[in-house]
Amino acid sequence: MLGHAAQALGHTCRFLDPAENPPAALVGETIRADYDDSAALCELAAASDVVTYEFENVPVDALQTLAPRTVLYPPPDALRLAQDRLSEKQLFEKLGIPVPPYQIVDSREDLVATIATLGFPAVLKTRRYGYDGKGQFVIRDGGDLDSAWTLLGGRPLIAEAWVPFEREVSIIGARARDGSTRTWPLTENRHTDGILRVSLAPVDDAALERVAVRYMHLLLDQLDYVGVLTLELFVSGNGLLANEFAPRVHNSGHWTIEGAATSQFENHVRAVCGAPLGSTRCRDFVGMVNLIGLIPAAIRALPDPRTTLHDYGKTARAGRKLGHVTVVAPTAAERDRLVADLDHIVNQTEDLQGLLP
Amino acid sequence: MLGHAAQALGHTCRFLDPAENPPAALVGETIRADYDDSAALCELAAASDVVTYEFENVPVDALQTLAPRTVLYPPPDALRLAQDRLSEKQLFEKLGIPVPPYQIVDSREDLVATIATLGFPAVLKTRRYGYDGKGQFVIRDGGDLDSAWTLLGGRPLIAEAWVPFEREVSIIGARARDGSTRTWPLTENRHTDGILRVSLAPVDDAALERVAVRYMHLLLDQLDYVGVLTLELFVSGNGLLANEFAPRVHNSGHWTIEGAATSQFENHVRAVCGAPLGSTRCRDFVGMVNLIGLIPAAIRALPDPRTTLHDYGKTARAGRKLGHVTVVAPTAAERDRLVADLDHIVNQTEDLQGLLP
Repeated sequence: MLGHAAQALGHTCRFLDPAENPPAALVGETIRADYDDSAALCELAAASDVVTYEFENVPVDALQTLAPRTVLYPPPDALRLAQDRLSEKQLFEKLGIPVPPYQIVDSREDLVATIATLGFPAVLKTRRYGYDGKGQFVIRDGGDLDSAWTLLGGRPLIAEAWVPFEREVSIIGARARDGSTRTWPLTENRHTDGILRVSLAPVDDAALERVAVRYMHLLLDQLDYVGVLTLELFVSGNGLLANEFAPRVHNSGHWTIEGAATSQFENHVRAVCGAPLGSTRCRDFVGMVNLIGLIPAAIRALPDPRTTLHDYGKTARAGRKLGHVTVVAPTAAERDRLVADLDHIVNQTEDLQGLLP
Repeated sequence: MLGHAAQALGHTCRFLDPAENPPAALVGETIRADYDDSAALCELAAASDVVTYEFENVPVDALQTLAPRTVLYPPPDALRLAQDRLSEKQLFEKLGIPVPPYQIVDSREDLVATIATLGFPAVLKTRRYGYDGKGQFVIRDGGDLDSAWTLLGGRPLIAEAWVPFEREVSIIGARARDGSTRTWPLTENRHTDGILRVSLAPVDDAALERVAVRYMHLLLDQLDYVGVLTLELFVSGNGLLANEFAPRVHNSGHWTIEGAATSQFENHVRAVCGAPLGSTRCRDFVGMVNLIGLIPAAIRALPDPRTTLHDYGKTARAGRKLGHVTVVAPTAAERDRLVADLDHIVNQTEDLQGLLP
């Protein structure tokens, strides 16, 4: 989707990806190499006016290799801070952005002491390389301590108090090279098993949005950021609490292709290439339903003109995001009804997922 | 743009194009061959589930080669009829769609006799292979007869009475395999030297639009059409007169990428692939300004968030369409002001066009 946006702006893309047939190969030459392959990184830098990245498990060292050899955005520091849940939370705290109570857990003794402080339930998380709910364990009572430690122990960990949140939201912002900033409307996100299933925009709460936009500006300016950044937040009884940020375009912003004047993808390309940002104004009421593991035939043949299918051209695999459907409707109620219908179709095919490789 | 739409729907594209570096090569494998190269056509057919075309000077024979070997849309007959201004007008007449007065011109004597009937000014046109105003000559008085004949004589010609039109409009429609049909809002088009410069949508005239939509349905159903079709019309004192139709996505519909729920490109792909059509509902007030010969630096660096640049990645050449800018604004007045500004920038650089190859 980034590649399409770049091509429409007249750019030619080249990709570095360790996968065999990455979707990006459809829109440009691909250097197949690991992210830490110096020769490949140098080849990419030499061939490019600008390099960007859109996966937060790219090693920061790769960016350090690229930085002196090309123009590189977003800044490596943003990735470095986002990769460790501790530095991420410390950044939030430094900026006065509230976070759920947390403790560092480096040993089993730490874990026991931490849970004594935080109480049940608590969430034990690896500090690094979490993705789509992986590297997390919800500790509901004392009986879960052993399982949690067996699964995750030995790596740098963090424990967080369970936030009894009303809903999860995200705010996506873009910052241009000249420091000008735009944000898309606040988006509500629904997860199952740690994987985003549904996004809905805009969230009809101007006060909440104002706070989220302020946090976004604090982050973007602090990081001297260029590109698109996503901030995930919990809406709790105590207001907005920051969960994490991602220095990239985000699944919860895929709806901006149809739903906003300029998509997150186009504005990311504009920003990193030094162009001015496009309008982030929202269109009607938008929903996004992820297609995970397989793309149901009923979705592919969907006769509803208010929906748009995006098929990433990936091989089906259980738990893999293969595409999404965007819904644009003139009222929130109509959007919600459509999203519920789509979600129902997707859930009906869940049983088939066991058959997938 | 068709390729991007197809990829987003999960399709893989392969192109046949005689050009050295066609823009399509960015999004798929390209067979470089002439349109009448049977071996290349067979290769394309063998490798494809569906074949479509989007240039009306593709020879009908090429479609006849493809048709028995693959699924081919739009139907070859639509192209055949569109390629000859005489058969095109006869089709309009058969369907009761009014056309400007015209006469067949096969000799210089025909020309003199025709002009005596039609009066001055009249437009002499080649029946085939016209494009962007090429193959046309406006005969303003008797002194133009020789020049017109020298330039165009010897080919099958047609002469048309000059229509004192108020404005030119186009209607774009899509028809799915099951016969269901959708049209985008009526669009006003402004040409200079036969080349489309500006399109504006929607045209605020419901009565006019109803007539245009009716003509579109007549055409689509008569042709048993599948895909996107464009009908260009003159708005004259005598109502709507058909100018020509194009069996393809159209420059006057490029605004649908940002301005409509589903673009002409996506609906063309949906139609030819047997998928249901997406909504053609329009967003706010939309304008499109073509970038011809060169893309001005001032346009590339345009800081206006209501505009989106599309750069086709073509080599600059005088008279060549290299890209376009779409404007989406909340009011018609704001849209018109923006379009005028853009047009001004484009016109200012016209003088440079003489320097182009």
